Amino acid sequence: MNKAYVHGYDHQENIRLQDQASTLTELLHSDTLYPAGSRVLEAGCGVGAQTVTLARSSPNALITSVDISEASVTEARKKVEAAGLTNVQFQQADIFNLPYGPDSFDHIFVCFVLEHLSHPVEALHTLKNHLRQGGTITVIEGDHGSVYFHPDSEAAYKAIQCQVELQRRAGGNAMIGRELYPLLSKAGYSSIRVSPRMVYVDSGKPELVEGFTKKTFTAMIEGVRKPAIRSGIIEQNLFDRGIKDLYRTTGPDGVFCYTFFKATGKK
Amino acid sequence: MNKAYVHGYDHQENIRLQDQASTLTELLHSDTLYPAGSRVLEAGCGVGAQTVTLARSSPNALITSVDISEASVTEARKKVEAAGLTNVQFQQADIFNLPYGPDSFDHIFVCFVLEHLSHPVEALHTLKNHLRQGGTITVIEGDHGSVYFHPDSEAAYKAIQCQVELQRRAGGNAMIGRELYPLLSKAGYSSIRVSPRMVYVDSGKPELVEGFTKKTFTAMIEGVRKPAIRSGIIEQNLFDRGIKDLYRTTGPDGVFCYTFFKATGKK
Repeated sequence: MNKAYVHGYDHQENIRLQDQASTLTELLHSDTLYPAGSRVLEAGCGVGAQTVTLARSSPNALITSVDISEASVTEARKKVEAAGLTNVQFQQADIFNLPYGPDSFDHIFVCFVLEHLSHPVEALHTLKNHLRQGGTITVIEGDHGSVYFHPDSEAAYKAIQCQVELQRRAGGNAMIGRELYPLLSKAGYSSIRVSPRMVYVDSGKPELVEGFTKKTFTAMIEGVRKPAIRSGIIEQNLFDRGIKDLYRTTGPDGVFCYTFFKATGKK
Repeated sequence: MNKAYVHGYDHQENIRLQDQASTLTELLHSDTLYPAGSRVLEAGCGVGAQTVTLARSSPNALITSVDISEASVTEARKKVEAAGLTNVQFQQADIFNLPYGPDSFDHIFVCFVLEHLSHPVEALHTLKNHLRQGGTITVIEGDHGSVYFHPDSEAAYKAIQCQVELQRRAGGNAMIGRELYPLLSKAGYSSIRVSPRMVYVDSGKPELVEGFTKKTFTAMIEGVRKPAIRSGIIEQNLFDRGIKDLYRTTGPDGVFCYTFFKATGKK
């Protein structure tokens, strides 16, 4: 689990993840509701950007949130406590080596995690061991190959490609969203259903122009400026023009599209 | 309105359009219902692929379907008669020079037409003259830049790009879907709402694998093989590999994504 440059490790990133979660909450999470008393594992909670939503939507579920980073777990715990939620317990743990027995959970929730793993099928397969027969897994991932916009811009695609390439070098896959069906299938889940969640932004939706195109997506790409230039993936001028062109899509005649994928499967 | 190589002019294309319409009917048209007695203009009906659906969904609306091609109008009329529908009248006419007065229609419906026009804003603006105050326009277009799939393939994107390039050379825009908001806005419509209609296909949806990925999208790209190679846009081997790779996305672990855009606006 190489997490060299990735999400949730500095303040700017924390804010972005927070912005993202609050902007996208409805779109991504509104249909995830776990029954009272059910045991839910959030595998890879990071700094808790999704944990508060998860815990609030299923107030009587017993949620266990784990992350490989102790610092992230501490941050996530603070966030959940600040929200006054009491149905989450936290644990520092590696997804590939969880301190839980087989059949410990009724449901598993995995959001923005597989994109960072070099062996996503193995992760899903290992998680299945901790799920009871008939239990479900829910997986949410983005896909940076799903981005397009107006006005079109080659430079903007090249800037986005930097994030894809850096994530690839770190062992991850920024275009994993489209693959959820085959990944869950290879990991042995059944009754797989994938639901694309497209974020479509035009100037008639000013809250998404701000909350998604500017503060979530473009901010994320801007965030890799230094490593992208330092590693020689892109020329500084081209990167900066790409970012400018991404902001250009937030004009009165601009349009921006991105798709997340949400999948469910059964053990 | 340069329609050199475009849709609906040979038998193969007719079948494809028909397959497309019946596969996508639900996704694209189920929310288009016009009230009894309302006067609806279908501008650019082509061979009637959408006309039957339109007329059936709004059995008591008075539909006028026009196309610039007399041959297409004849074909469309046959289709509507064969379906036993009596609420459509046909007319050969140019969108830019319609034989109707101002305020002749309560609603206008435009599907897969703007992509072929070199002046889509002007077309939308001209159509508005025939609409009563408070009347609506509904526009549906695809976007070939919205395509992505698994397994990924550079050759497949290059084959798709041939269709985009040929359409561009014919004065059209195969990536116009994303632009519906700014186009309607520039043409002076208000209350514009754009709704993306994503076709997501995995092997859990065999009817879409056949009906959309194979018979609609890949068949359409295959259809430009000769003009693409003849015009020197692509090498024959690369094109054929691209088509092979598009079919590869219909395998058990394959995924295919395409997005149509449906917009409504008000005069």
